[in-house]
Amino acid sequence: MKRIAILTSGGDAPGMNAAIRAVVRKGIHDGLEVYGINYGYAGLVAGDIRRLDIADVGDKIQKGGTFLYSARYPEFATEEGQLKGIEQLKKFGIEGLVVIGGDGSYHGAMALTRHGFPAVGIPGTIDNDIPGTDFTVGFDTAINTVLEAIDRIRDTATSHVRTFVIEVMGRNAGDIALWAGVAGGADEIVIPEHNFDMEAIAKKIQAGRDRGKKHCLIVLAEGVMGGNEFAEELSTYGDFHTRVSILGHIVRGGSPSARDRVLASKFGAYAVELLEEGKGGLCIGMKNNEVVSADIIETLENNKHVPDLSLFDLNNTISF
Amino acid sequence: MKRIAILTSGGDAPGMNAAIRAVVRKGIHDGLEVYGINYGYAGLVAGDIRRLDIADVGDKIQKGGTFLYSARYPEFATEEGQLKGIEQLKKFGIEGLVVIGGDGSYHGAMALTRHGFPAVGIPGTIDNDIPGTDFTVGFDTAINTVLEAIDRIRDTATSHVRTFVIEVMGRNAGDIALWAGVAGGADEIVIPEHNFDMEAIAKKIQAGRDRGKKHCLIVLAEGVMGGNEFAEELSTYGDFHTRVSILGHIVRGGSPSARDRVLASKFGAYAVELLEEGKGGLCIGMKNNEVVSADIIETLENNKHVPDLSLFDLNNTISF
Amino acid sequence: MKRIAILTSGGDAPGMNAAIRAVVRKGIHDGLEVYGINYGYAGLVAGDIRRLDIADVGDKIQKGGTFLYSARYPEFATEEGQLKGIEQLKKFGIEGLVVIGGDGSYHGAMALTRHGFPAVGIPGTIDNDIPGTDFTVGFDTAINTVLEAIDRIRDTATSHVRTFVIEVMGRNAGDIALWAGVAGGADEIVIPEHNFDMEAIAKKIQAGRDRGKKHCLIVLAEGVMGGNEFAEELSTYGDFHTRVSILGHIVRGGSPSARDRVLASKFGAYAVELLEEGKGGLCIGMKNNEVVSADIIETLENNKHVPDLSLFDLNNTISF
Amino acid sequence: MKRIAILTSGGDAPGMNAAIRAVVRKGIHDGLEVYGINYGYAGLVAGDIRRLDIADVGDKIQKGGTFLYSARYPEFATEEGQLKGIEQLKKFGIEGLVVIGGDGSYHGAMALTRHGFPAVGIPGTIDNDIPGTDFTVGFDTAINTVLEAIDRIRDTATSHVRTFVIEVMGRNAGDIALWAGVAGGADEIVIPEHNFDMEAIAKKIQAGRDRGKKHCLIVLAEGVMGGNEFAEELSTYGDFHTRVSILGHIVRGGSPSARDRVLASKFGAYAVELLEEGKGGLCIGMKNNEVVSADIIETLENNKHVPDLSLFDLNNTISF
Repeated sequence: MKRIAILTSGGDAPGMNAAIRAVVRKGIHDGLEVYGINYGYAGLVAGDIRRLDIADVGDKIQKGGTFLYSARYPEFATEEGQLKGIEQLKKFGIEGLVVIGGDGSYHGAMALTRHGFPAVGIPGTIDNDIPGTDFTVGFDTAINTVLEAIDRIRDTATSHVRTFVIEVMGRNAGDIALWAGVAGGADEIVIPEHNFDMEAIAKKIQAGRDRGKKHCLIVLAEGVMGGNEFAEELSTYGDFHTRVSILGHIVRGGSPSARDRVLASKFGAYAVELLEEGKGGLCIGMKNNEVVSADIIETLENNKHVPDLSLFDLNNTISF
Repeated sequence: MKRIAILTSGGDAPGMNAAIRAVVRKGIHDGLEVYGINYGYAGLVAGDIRRLDIADVGDKIQKGGTFLYSARYPEFATEEGQLKGIEQLKKFGIEGLVVIGGDGSYHGAMALTRHGFPAVGIPGTIDNDIPGTDFTVGFDTAINTVLEAIDRIRDTATSHVRTFVIEVMGRNAGDIALWAGVAGGADEIVIPEHNFDMEAIAKKIQAGRDRGKKHCLIVLAEGVMGGNEFAEELSTYGDFHTRVSILGHIVRGGSPSARDRVLASKFGAYAVELLEEGKGGLCIGMKNNEVVSADIIETLENNKHVPDLSLFDLNNTISF
Repeated sequence: MKRIAILTSGGDAPGMNAAIRAVVRKGIHDGLEVYGINYGYAGLVAGDIRRLDIADVGDKIQKGGTFLYSARYPEFATEEGQLKGIEQLKKFGIEGLVVIGGDGSYHGAMALTRHGFPAVGIPGTIDNDIPGTDFTVGFDTAINTVLEAIDRIRDTATSHVRTFVIEVMGRNAGDIALWAGVAGGADEIVIPEHNFDMEAIAKKIQAGRDRGKKHCLIVLAEGVMGGNEFAEELSTYGDFHTRVSILGHIVRGGSPSARDRVLASKFGAYAVELLEEGKGGLCIGMKNNEVVSADIIETLENNKHVPDLSLFDLNNTISF
Repeated sequence: MKRIAILTSGGDAPGMNAAIRAVVRKGIHDGLEVYGINYGYAGLVAGDIRRLDIADVGDKIQKGGTFLYSARYPEFATEEGQLKGIEQLKKFGIEGLVVIGGDGSYHGAMALTRHGFPAVGIPGTIDNDIPGTDFTVGFDTAINTVLEAIDRIRDTATSHVRTFVIEVMGRNAGDIALWAGVAGGADEIVIPEHNFDMEAIAKKIQAGRDRGKKHCLIVLAEGVMGGNEFAEELSTYGDFHTRVSILGHIVRGGSPSARDRVLASKFGAYAVELLEEGKGGLCIGMKNNEVVSADIIETLENNKHVPDLSLFDLNNTISF
């Protein structure tokens, strides 16, 4: 193995740059040449590929987003696109590929592997919804960003004795809502993985009001429904001076947290090690504080991400 | 003058607690008793009034919101409400009142003054839309909060080569959009105080795209229209991969900035001085770095807040 | 079990308030009365004890430090002090105690246990140096605070082409230096758990200079030596325009991170469960993402905290 | 005027990059070519000069430090150095120079002006100690950085009932200490521009203790003496459980605040305007919210920066 490449794909996540940096530095440390592919699979197929040196990853570890850019590229689901991508890699003499992204990105890596090209996936998404790892790169930063927003909203909610519905990202997963909700002292956390009872929520808010509680914070995962829709439904049970805050895209960016940078660095270095050992078709994860790898096909097909639902029960116990 | 009171009214703003603290400490320093009124004019009429001691304002200077709470109370526009409020103040032996809030709050102070009760207004709102002052308490924090969000969104916008419409608060004023827009390097700032030409904006975005610019950030004051509406209108001129971010209530809260705490402290101490001198019917402001006061009636009736439109021109010059 | 109490002891750590909140809310949720003891073991012996209600822990989850205060109290190492403490607990009808703190605090809990009073320890310290847990409450916040400082210092170091020695807390443990160092892209991490070679460090700095690197950041654990001493020793190998930054106490405070609040909440609720089951003499930990408990005596006597030294090797690989 | 250049000199300050960006963008907007000089006057003399394009200042507005680097260069005080610098500028066809920095940098600009080369100075330093302007670029960010540290230290000080001496930068000026001290609710602010009485400070701390105050925060400007020295002297009057925190270099870096970015943008654009009008030998300032310019020689020779000492009196009134 003399040359490897790296691309980022799917929604950007804080820590992607730290992972790229680790791949580049570990690769160069071990005597490899490392190439960067711009715009994910779209750039792969288009041949938007350039050599990365130490200086290219300088002053990047602290930056959000991905300096290799990302792009949606549904065409990579076709065999034609995949073969074209492999052709480009071969043209540059590249023998192994690291892909950072969510499950869409993993499917691309899986396809390349099926065609015989070694690809390794690093889980990078704020949503934490990738099987094969306890935590994805970007999740820790995202929950801290949401938490900052919750802390700010609490000021206003308390000052005006209001109920806030705070809609947070997460696609179909409730992880961001769960972690940020517990950390933010949410009165209620509403996630796709668990039923909710609007009437019970209304009663709980009223009970809090009755005993003098000033604010009520409901953290709602976007996978359940939109914040405005939720507030409207809630309003049929009473007037709780409800306001809606849809955090949206501010949760994606920002300088990565310490943990995300460490996670990304570990993942990046390990991805290079796997390729050096001639291994491909693997996805990397952090399981019980250990960096592990697993068959990417099996992981995607046989595993399903499940959030830490003990947090849901915990919140019901301590936020009543 | 032996007893004064303080209330916060209207939307909460970071630094209100610092102003309350300054009023309480300056008052006690000078031998006065200081009372706090909960829930603004509603609490005034209801008699929700308590004495504040040094310890009550301890550990408050860094907190967002208002620990005296705020509330909407349209009933205070009636003479009946106003007289009831004065009755409550007299019941507690209170001889002067400090009101912190926006222009609604000033109207209340003006009414009390007209009934012969000395009231002094401190401009406290994130919107900066109060006549008689260059800056309001809360504005500096708000623009920094918006700026953080813009910096985060830039990461994502750049990574995905997208256009973002970032809707910010400000009611009918463009101050927040102007300051945060210039500070955030916005490509375009859209405010109520200035016309905009959607076609020209679209052309500018396209021109940026053509020369390789990755992101485009449009900061939109809510006083113009909603972010989604704006994006829809923009989309009739081309597909700019536009996303909308409505910052909303996260801009209200948060620990106040250094400048807001200093401003609030100066205003609070000066308000007490004015009452001690037997003056009422005044609103306080910062003009050219000097703390000043002016007739509250005249200020509200004859002056109109105008944002620093030189920022609009500056941005057109340096963000082309 | 009808009444339990909680105290914080040793150096304060962000998240202690979240843990107290969880103990109080979980306890009340389960029908217990919960008491708070001020000033750690000193307050225990002095009987500075009061009942805590839901409202007492409102608006506390986001606050750094400990609202129950902490204090050094070497006298609790004596049997006399311990028996006096138990007497006070009995006077209030308290049947179980939760102690949050570092290893000194654990020794107190161990002593109470030996005297037959059920005490459960929650690891709360920024230093992460407690056996029986992968992470302590406060560590995650501390490494993010250090990281912010490193990011700031990098700006200045790059602008002036300087070497910075950044001394961080951690007592005898290198955890903070390791995590913040990897996350901050430190050129060198110097910790008590690993030898260092000053000459080799000097050569590495010179090599970076030679290839055009602008800044050099050395993260130094206080357990090795002081920053000024280190810089002086380094200067005997060459002039690297070295500056020293001793982060000190700013690393202790601050609003806890999402992860610290979640960890603290889990620990707090679990501590109450253990006491409810009649269990004492235990310390709580997070091992491989699971909340666990272990004999406090055995844990302290037979286990030694070891930092994740794989981070040290990782950094040598990716920061060369 | 066809070509202008820009350099940064002296200690780096947040917002320098925003000023460079404004100079480059305003210049290009008006049809000029803009050159960047690396490493301040050292780079000027060495001819380390390159053309800057729009893309060179992209993604820079939010970054601390200066991407043109800075350096000490006492040799520029000699006529030989100055003439060599002018020679380099002429070699590149540069007809006007913008200098961003502190008073040392202004002396360089003054010398160039005396030799007939038009130079305009922008005040950029965290210390706020430049005559001719109310505020310098970097000051607002610096006071907010100090404030964050104070807020963190307050957590620990309160938790342990301690006195903290917080030493802050500012060279011979007390501005940072004054503003951050008032904003942080400091019990005492000690600055070079005002006498202090250690015995009175000790008595005030004791009085606070006596009435139950938990923490005591003393903000000390480095221009008075070092924090450790101060604490030692204080300790001769009693044991106040004093700790020292020397903030040092963390105050220099960091992403600039909204206000610093706006100030820097205004200054940068105005500097270009002045050069376009054929004016040199001027320094720019913000006076009473207006951007102004003045003779750089006269300003340096006849004016002395004085901090807002009303803040000192205010603090004595509200922090007793």
